[in-house]
Amino acid sequence: MPLRSPDQYRAGLRDGRTVYFRGQPVPDVTTHPVIGIAVRHASIDFEMAEDPQHRDLAVIENGEGAPYSRYYKLPESADDLLKRSALIERATALGNTLVVLIKEIGTDALFGLHLIAKQVDAAKGSSYLGRVQDYYRYCRDNDLALAVAQTDVKGDRSRGPSEQEHPDYYVRIVERRSDGIVVRGAKCHTSNTTHVDEVIVLPTRAMSPADADYAVAFAIPVNTPGLKLLASPYGSAGQEERSEFEFPITARHKMMETTTVFDDVFVPWDRVFLAGETEFAGPVALGFVEFHRFTAISYKLPLVDALVGAAQMMADYNGISRAAHVRDKLIQLVSYAETLRGLTHHAALRARVGELGIAVPDALTVNMAKYHFAHHYHEAVAMVQDIAGGLLVTGPGVEDVESEAIGRYFTHYYGGRAGVGGRERLQAINFVKDLTSSEYGGYQEVLAIHAEGSLEAEKLMIARAYDGQRALQLVRRMAGLEA
Amino acid sequence: MPLRSPDQYRAGLRDGRTVYFRGQPVPDVTTHPVIGIAVRHASIDFEMAEDPQHRDLAVIENGEGAPYSRYYKLPESADDLLKRSALIERATALGNTLVVLIKEIGTDALFGLHLIAKQVDAAKGSSYLGRVQDYYRYCRDNDLALAVAQTDVKGDRSRGPSEQEHPDYYVRIVERRSDGIVVRGAKCHTSNTTHVDEVIVLPTRAMSPADADYAVAFAIPVNTPGLKLLASPYGSAGQEERSEFEFPITARHKMMETTTVFDDVFVPWDRVFLAGETEFAGPVALGFVEFHRFTAISYKLPLVDALVGAAQMMADYNGISRAAHVRDKLIQLVSYAETLRGLTHHAALRARVGELGIAVPDALTVNMAKYHFAHHYHEAVAMVQDIAGGLLVTGPGVEDVESEAIGRYFTHYYGGRAGVGGRERLQAINFVKDLTSSEYGGYQEVLAIHAEGSLEAEKLMIARAYDGQRALQLVRRMAGLEA
Amino acid sequence: MPLRSPDQYRAGLRDGRTVYFRGQPVPDVTTHPVIGIAVRHASIDFEMAEDPQHRDLAVIENGEGAPYSRYYKLPESADDLLKRSALIERATALGNTLVVLIKEIGTDALFGLHLIAKQVDAAKGSSYLGRVQDYYRYCRDNDLALAVAQTDVKGDRSRGPSEQEHPDYYVRIVERRSDGIVVRGAKCHTSNTTHVDEVIVLPTRAMSPADADYAVAFAIPVNTPGLKLLASPYGSAGQEERSEFEFPITARHKMMETTTVFDDVFVPWDRVFLAGETEFAGPVALGFVEFHRFTAISYKLPLVDALVGAAQMMADYNGISRAAHVRDKLIQLVSYAETLRGLTHHAALRARVGELGIAVPDALTVNMAKYHFAHHYHEAVAMVQDIAGGLLVTGPGVEDVESEAIGRYFTHYYGGRAGVGGRERLQAINFVKDLTSSEYGGYQEVLAIHAEGSLEAEKLMIARAYDGQRALQLVRRMAGLEA
Amino acid sequence: MPLRSPDQYRAGLRDGRTVYFRGQPVPDVTTHPVIGIAVRHASIDFEMAEDPQHRDLAVIENGEGAPYSRYYKLPESADDLLKRSALIERATALGNTLVVLIKEIGTDALFGLHLIAKQVDAAKGSSYLGRVQDYYRYCRDNDLALAVAQTDVKGDRSRGPSEQEHPDYYVRIVERRSDGIVVRGAKCHTSNTTHVDEVIVLPTRAMSPADADYAVAFAIPVNTPGLKLLASPYGSAGQEERSEFEFPITARHKMMETTTVFDDVFVPWDRVFLAGETEFAGPVALGFVEFHRFTAISYKLPLVDALVGAAQMMADYNGISRAAHVRDKLIQLVSYAETLRGLTHHAALRARVGELGIAVPDALTVNMAKYHFAHHYHEAVAMVQDIAGGLLVTGPGVEDVESEAIGRYFTHYYGGRAGVGGRERLQAINFVKDLTSSEYGGYQEVLAIHAEGSLEAEKLMIARAYDGQRALQLVRRMAGLEA
Repeated sequence: MPLRSPDQYRAGLRDGRTVYFRGQPVPDVTTHPVIGIAVRHASIDFEMAEDPQHRDLAVIENGEGAPYSRYYKLPESADDLLKRSALIERATALGNTLVVLIKEIGTDALFGLHLIAKQVDAAKGSSYLGRVQDYYRYCRDNDLALAVAQTDVKGDRSRGPSEQEHPDYYVRIVERRSDGIVVRGAKCHTSNTTHVDEVIVLPTRAMSPADADYAVAFAIPVNTPGLKLLASPYGSAGQEERSEFEFPITARHKMMETTTVFDDVFVPWDRVFLAGETEFAGPVALGFVEFHRFTAISYKLPLVDALVGAAQMMADYNGISRAAHVRDKLIQLVSYAETLRGLTHHAALRARVGELGIAVPDALTVNMAKYHFAHHYHEAVAMVQDIAGGLLVTGPGVEDVESEAIGRYFTHYYGGRAGVGGRERLQAINFVKDLTSSEYGGYQEVLAIHAEGSLEAEKLMIARAYDGQRALQLVRRMAGLEA
Repeated sequence: MPLRSPDQYRAGLRDGRTVYFRGQPVPDVTTHPVIGIAVRHASIDFEMAEDPQHRDLAVIENGEGAPYSRYYKLPESADDLLKRSALIERATALGNTLVVLIKEIGTDALFGLHLIAKQVDAAKGSSYLGRVQDYYRYCRDNDLALAVAQTDVKGDRSRGPSEQEHPDYYVRIVERRSDGIVVRGAKCHTSNTTHVDEVIVLPTRAMSPADADYAVAFAIPVNTPGLKLLASPYGSAGQEERSEFEFPITARHKMMETTTVFDDVFVPWDRVFLAGETEFAGPVALGFVEFHRFTAISYKLPLVDALVGAAQMMADYNGISRAAHVRDKLIQLVSYAETLRGLTHHAALRARVGELGIAVPDALTVNMAKYHFAHHYHEAVAMVQDIAGGLLVTGPGVEDVESEAIGRYFTHYYGGRAGVGGRERLQAINFVKDLTSSEYGGYQEVLAIHAEGSLEAEKLMIARAYDGQRALQLVRRMAGLEA
Repeated sequence: MPLRSPDQYRAGLRDGRTVYFRGQPVPDVTTHPVIGIAVRHASIDFEMAEDPQHRDLAVIENGEGAPYSRYYKLPESADDLLKRSALIERATALGNTLVVLIKEIGTDALFGLHLIAKQVDAAKGSSYLGRVQDYYRYCRDNDLALAVAQTDVKGDRSRGPSEQEHPDYYVRIVERRSDGIVVRGAKCHTSNTTHVDEVIVLPTRAMSPADADYAVAFAIPVNTPGLKLLASPYGSAGQEERSEFEFPITARHKMMETTTVFDDVFVPWDRVFLAGETEFAGPVALGFVEFHRFTAISYKLPLVDALVGAAQMMADYNGISRAAHVRDKLIQLVSYAETLRGLTHHAALRARVGELGIAVPDALTVNMAKYHFAHHYHEAVAMVQDIAGGLLVTGPGVEDVESEAIGRYFTHYYGGRAGVGGRERLQAINFVKDLTSSEYGGYQEVLAIHAEGSLEAEKLMIARAYDGQRALQLVRRMAGLEA
Repeated sequence: MPLRSPDQYRAGLRDGRTVYFRGQPVPDVTTHPVIGIAVRHASIDFEMAEDPQHRDLAVIENGEGAPYSRYYKLPESADDLLKRSALIERATALGNTLVVLIKEIGTDALFGLHLIAKQVDAAKGSSYLGRVQDYYRYCRDNDLALAVAQTDVKGDRSRGPSEQEHPDYYVRIVERRSDGIVVRGAKCHTSNTTHVDEVIVLPTRAMSPADADYAVAFAIPVNTPGLKLLASPYGSAGQEERSEFEFPITARHKMMETTTVFDDVFVPWDRVFLAGETEFAGPVALGFVEFHRFTAISYKLPLVDALVGAAQMMADYNGISRAAHVRDKLIQLVSYAETLRGLTHHAALRARVGELGIAVPDALTVNMAKYHFAHHYHEAVAMVQDIAGGLLVTGPGVEDVESEAIGRYFTHYYGGRAGVGGRERLQAINFVKDLTSSEYGGYQEVLAIHAEGSLEAEKLMIARAYDGQRALQLVRRMAGLEA
């Protein structure tokens, strides 16, 4: 099968899936006023593959057999990782800072599953690797869009799956049958489940022997019976009326998140990738995350570039480019963005090629990059808001600016430095508002902290990935504590 | 005239004022779906005066004559300032972290005008002080609501009023007549103009002799011909449909900001408080700000308390109160909030009583407090978002939770630590979302940086208010550079 | 007995005490090349009492009976605390940023012991309070200098006294006799023990029932048999050759720290203030610290003022006062220093007068102030070093500047802005060097973090002193979680 | 000529050079009690070349002709830069965190001079490049040690060379002769001038046409008549008595800094590399710095590793490795160190090979790395001091620990967690003290801020090296401001 067209992708979403939005069932996600925006945003993926300007990056042509989406390329070298990063960055830039994420995250999961399935098979005599490989080829060859459901609803965060007030705070196997398993539970903040073809389900944490029913990984089509997608309305107020003037990002770009309910869902064995091997629940979670944080730092690049560019643009429009404190903030923003870019690329260059010939980005560098991004994000936003001005939250609506009665006031009064007209400046302001001082701004703040693991998770991984013996030996020698 | 009732206040707003919202004229602000929310929020002011629980704080009874709103009390002591601060804090707490600001800011302007008018009169032989005092008594005795329009639209921020591409980037006198002046121009982000009785207009910066037409301060009723209030729709998407479950703050509380256009507005002389005395444009601006930043740090207290409380509540609900990094963040939030409170109260205790017996809060302490608040606000928000979790931006809508078909999923799956049910936890999450990760969250971030002067403005005032000679002499003696 | 003169104080130190310095016994501390400097520094205390310029602050005249040192004044009001703070600040300024600390810390301990002894007596039927009061009057009436030995050597910091590898890591009672107790162990970093009259010994932490022998507090004269003071040579290299030109602070000002060994030291019962009541070990430690951190933030004021003054002086001498980044750093330094001062004074103003009529500074404010100081100290130092320049560590010695052969080079080449000569600028640089970029600089950095409790200790006290219910109730009401 | 031995290097220093220390002439630097330490430290360079363990890194064998020190290798590729970085890192590790710097800095200057000389020749028709190449080969083939004197004494930092109170605040040409030039003036903080063979002199800043006499670059042997080296005694108090127990770093490792006076020094034309071409003064300064900051970030690596290792070691010895705040600080230190390492290596990997086939490290990445190091250095030190404990400044001297009378107290009382003895722990503490809380600690703090350019200089270079158009175009497209 060749690569799919955007239309083919959208047609595939009309498959009887169970989706709810604000309490109402959604018969067709592609025409829904909110989810439809997300579908069109996701189509960027398929449009890039057809666009001569992006095809080289988006499509692998040189493999054996048919061309396929580069997202599916199993990384075998630093260069593969750099190209994957570049593709993710490009797509996100086309998404006006919003990642597309209908193949990125799913392939991260598949890469990780390859590595861990091999370990499980070696330890347990199971045959998961073959299933993973078959499923990977199926997705790749059918050019499928994938979601990953990982985060359980969790209940008391200080307790494990089997220690909770009720048994359903983590997704679990409620029945093992000859032909497959039946699962129950709910995952939260699953991205884009509403408009992909398949959902891959992974455990969210390491588990103890008591948690055997909870150590489960699998994949299913989105229209599987019993799977219910409860879409979050966050950030969708007035979505239909958004103009590109007032909402340059969110008028056309949107992610969806679902509470993903597994109401006794049946999964056949050939789609089950872990089922009870508790000691591998943690490794499966981390195997995914090792790749996914590299995806994350790649897709944050257009976002941090946008902060830099927004600050430059507003400093210029406001006539303050030469003010010392503005210059200083611009330099801090540049340093923030380019340190992220440098570490992201360096993580690829320092990749380790291991089992199955798969190149894994350097975990220490990836996690330092992610932590750097996340730890300073709010501060970077503050600098951009500072340079842009209070008009971020007091400006007119599109109907004001286009009003015959009062539109001229905005044109006349909201100009900036000589040569910058009111409408142009308001449009620039609106971009910064949509980016930083809006529901989308709040969304990005929360994502910075929580998506792909919290700040604490990144810190934990830095501690794990660092070889502490080197520094300790160095210091002991210097201190004269060793010969 | 006695204190007005909430109804009397609202009735007064139906006075023929010219207000636009999203390009449409607004015939009655009190019934407008968005502005009406702001009107009801502003009514808190008048409700407090009638409420036995708050009347002692809200009303001055012991003066000569009729009782009047404590906001109008000219501060004569540290205690007056502490009570004013307490009143502002209490009202803002009733506003669920949103300041009421229909008397606070106006009285700040009146206090400052008292002090500077006296200086202008002394230097120029003018008689501004009498006008200010008359106007002050008029407002106080009629229990009026006031806005202050200060920030000009500014054009190129690196240039003065008379150096711009066109002459209208700052409000100016276009005609001086025997009975008054005619002014033209626009002020931006004026708070609550849509629903107060009077607007006081002040210059926004120091001026040079070339800027004589721009050195102007005055007051007018909001329904004055030529005055046009162009309301910002920021943060109002879906305002009508907001439920208290989903939007515990913004379903009922709202500020309005206007672009305030002066289309050749006539102002009679008895309402003119500065007209051409350029060397006093800066002092008038600062005289207001000296009081207004004290108001600002007072009304930020419920906001920072809410950050602390939100973090405590979510840490508890999520079962992570004992996690070391959570405890550390809670302590940092407490320290952030209580340092602000300590400095706010200290600024009152260190007040200087000067001209006209008016007590001015200590400028150094006020500005340090304001800078402390503003400089760390985004960081504090990040800590709260960290503790609350990603559900801030992926949670259900009210219709979801109340749906017969799917509501039970939310109740069942979104519980927290033992004893905390799903609905309760989602309600708590929604509060934190509305506070920090929403348009209101963005609004508060931008306000933190820009309202009542930017971070740079506060730093400038710290430099001015600090007596550098003391430290310098100390060091010179220690260094042996002086006998 | 009247107040003692500096000579009387010094004479009292020749009492047969056992002191070691660099492995050698010190027969007379007052003439020792290093400790003698510390003795002369400590004499500031007695000189102030005789100096008309300082006597009002240093001496209480209005009490019943003879005048006595104000350090001994039991604080009964905010004003008492403010005066105590002012006295400590003044003395430290005369010490060129180095606290005198021969009465401050001892009286902090005595104040705390008053409060806790009362509690112990109430709980246990003991009669400690009378002993504390008798001892307090003895010290006050004889104008004695006091050290406090609190920090045990500790061994494994994660284990309690009775869980260590050997029993001596905390000072303990090895024998209980009819006339007193015998103690063994060592305390570390005890300040000024070498040159005070008495040492008060307190437990360093909360204890469990197993630690009964370790729950001990007492006081003894410094020449008590078995007490050995092992002075640290830190910071004393080349002490004798230090010129005031090169070392404006440390040529004349010095603290001493000792490892304080109790080699089976006998303590009579009337000097024992705790002996086995383990549940009060923590309260005794904290009771002292509640006062001592207030002392600490008071004596840090000349230090932070010196950072501000040093930055101002060097900015001026280097001709960079108007550079934007320099101005910004100066403002940050001012804000750092004055926030400390504001919170320090506010802690006094918010004092709680409780048991025995003793006023205790507000613990929340004290600990926030201390944390503020400590958390930002290194950053403040970095700003001062930045403004001062690299010459801090590459400048000439006094012999160079005074050399006939080469002195003129320094005079000629090291001038600053017009009007600032080379010698003057080098003298200023030397002050900043001695303050920030020297052993004394390192000493102050380590003190900032560790003295009077670590950063973590301050954070713990902030958590304890904060009433979390207020913010929690506020938020629950705002969130609609309560009626 | 082959590579020189350490003895040959030292012999070369007895050449009649004019050196002063504390006002006294130094006839032989190799035997001077302070400078002799620096000479022995510098010998590391020559020892490495002879040591089989380091020779591969330290010596280039594969070139045409004789082997030579790798420092002299003109970098032609990323790999050359990585090896140079590795060599500098290795040598500094052998120097116990102190860079050797007798070839690193000089070759940085020579690399830069190659590039700029070519530009000057192209613009001016001069023939500087040939001189530079000849001089480079002379130094390389004779295995010479080099210093670079760049920073002028400067006077008023806000004014240029020709605007000062006297004409000598910057080194200048006072006479142009047929055979060469005569220079006068002084450079400050020149490293290691006392014990190298040659000194290269560069301008310190961009200059205006009025500064023609100041636009001068050249090289001379250290024993040139009129050249006077006035050594700074900073950090040398008690140098002779330092034991390795008490001063594990500074007992054996030392840099020297001189005020370098040019008392009408004659320089022949073939050693003159700039003489009056004012527009190239800035480029020469920057050309050097482009390489030198890469050297700097390379030689900081053992220092930041030592901070990490020191924190790990002390956390372990103190028994607090598992405390949450300690773990957090360790992770922050790791991230601090490894971000520096990652950016340093990335700067090499992103090198640009340009004119003359010379590879220049990526300026943006180098400056971000340098800024990252410098901006967080004090904070990193604070974390290490926090973990190590107050004993850093209150510990015993070597004579105490080795004393028969009292030594056992230290052994007994200063142990740490089970298994860590007192002497071992004190030795570890002493290392941390010498590293962070001593004159050497102050030296490293000041170097972090000022060496190789201030924080502001790095920020300026980040602004220059960043291509702002990319982010600006991206944002303009996203905002809809461009087609």
